[in-house]
Amino acid sequence: MTEAGQGSAAPEQASEGVIELLGLVAYASLVAFFRLAEDASLAESLADKADLARMAVTEFGHFELLRDRITELGADPQQAMAPFVEPIDAFHARTDPSDWLEGLVKAYVGDGIAADFYRITAHLLDPQNQAIVLSVLADSGESEFAITRVREAIAADPAVAGRLGLWARRLMGEALSQAQRVAAEREALARLLAGGSPAQLGEIGRMFAGLTDAHAERMAQLGLAE
Amino acid sequence: MTEAGQGSAAPEQASEGVIELLGLVAYASLVAFFRLAEDASLAESLADKADLARMAVTEFGHFELLRDRITELGADPQQAMAPFVEPIDAFHARTDPSDWLEGLVKAYVGDGIAADFYRITAHLLDPQNQAIVLSVLADSGESEFAITRVREAIAADPAVAGRLGLWARRLMGEALSQAQRVAAEREALARLLAGGSPAQLGEIGRMFAGLTDAHAERMAQLGLAE
Repeated sequence: MTEAGQGSAAPEQASEGVIELLGLVAYASLVAFFRLAEDASLAESLADKADLARMAVTEFGHFELLRDRITELGADPQQAMAPFVEPIDAFHARTDPSDWLEGLVKAYVGDGIAADFYRITAHLLDPQNQAIVLSVLADSGESEFAITRVREAIAADPAVAGRLGLWARRLMGEALSQAQRVAAEREALARLLAGGSPAQLGEIGRMFAGLTDAHAERMAQLGLAE
Repeated sequence: MTEAGQGSAAPEQASEGVIELLGLVAYASLVAFFRLAEDASLAESLADKADLARMAVTEFGHFELLRDRITELGADPQQAMAPFVEPIDAFHARTDPSDWLEGLVKAYVGDGIAADFYRITAHLLDPQNQAIVLSVLADSGESEFAITRVREAIAADPAVAGRLGLWARRLMGEALSQAQRVAAEREALARLLAGGSPAQLGEIGRMFAGLTDAHAERMAQLGLAE
């Protein structure tokens, strides 16, 4: 009994992957709260500020839900989030919006990528954890107001479309770059995302490709060239 | 009928005062959200960050409640908040915390002053508006965690008490200074706060004195000299 058999090791690894997934999403939500609140201050009107602040508040609710779930599963939230602090902070440091429109596009793009990611990962989880992730997913869509604002800005000044298109491509590139780093470094998480088998790591590449396709559709909705 | 009689002017003025009071509290809540979120980033641990962020989120809930109430009353929230943008922004510009402990004391002191103010003003309102202000009041108390943290910091380094004591006094001084400016500039609001009569403007001074007494009690709870 000192050596764990194949049969008992597998569920332990799966559980480690689940804690990592919850830690990743929890930290991403906490940082999204801070960044959206900060980016909201770039807005000129109180109504615009309030719209982005509302998204920030929703992200904080996700963080609390996921933090409490991690605690329920007997893990320490701070430890579960720790591996993702550096890549997620790096993503935000490299994608600091320089004006309100860039902040708006980042909120919309980020919200969209997160929703796609939740949709993909939900079915990899057991029913209880799946319910948590789906309830987080249900809140997305608050960024729809961004579509109108970005389209209005492009109508007023068509040159804006090129600049914001480049910005959105950079956002997606930085997100994928950090995601690839996380997938390479966190074996248990990568295994979970690949459907439980290390032989299926190519699955992660296919997942990233799916996220990129969905991103291209969102760019079209904003009226930006992909 | 071209000249409003004494009898019909009074309720109109009262209603203007109510809109001003709601606008004041709405804008104060919105700014508290942004400032608390910003100050939370000064915390080193994720748990500390989350505690202050939770207070920020609660403030945003207050803002939404008050904004919607102003709209229900047929007024424009942006216009109702406008007279208070300058004094409230000035208060925050003059009281920008330089470290986590100053941010913590500001959160605790600010939460306390706000709760006292809600308690005093609630009875000046009609039942429906009173219910809104009391529901905002019910949320206060989230800053209690600050007491433990500040006392721990003082235990670890007694010199901290003097510095934070001065800081808390400055916070209260700046708050009173801006409040006095608002009371002098907004006649309808001052009249409401004085119980409906311009002859009772001395009431406002007594209200400020009451806020200062309560502040002194909170300083003692934090372990700070007043």
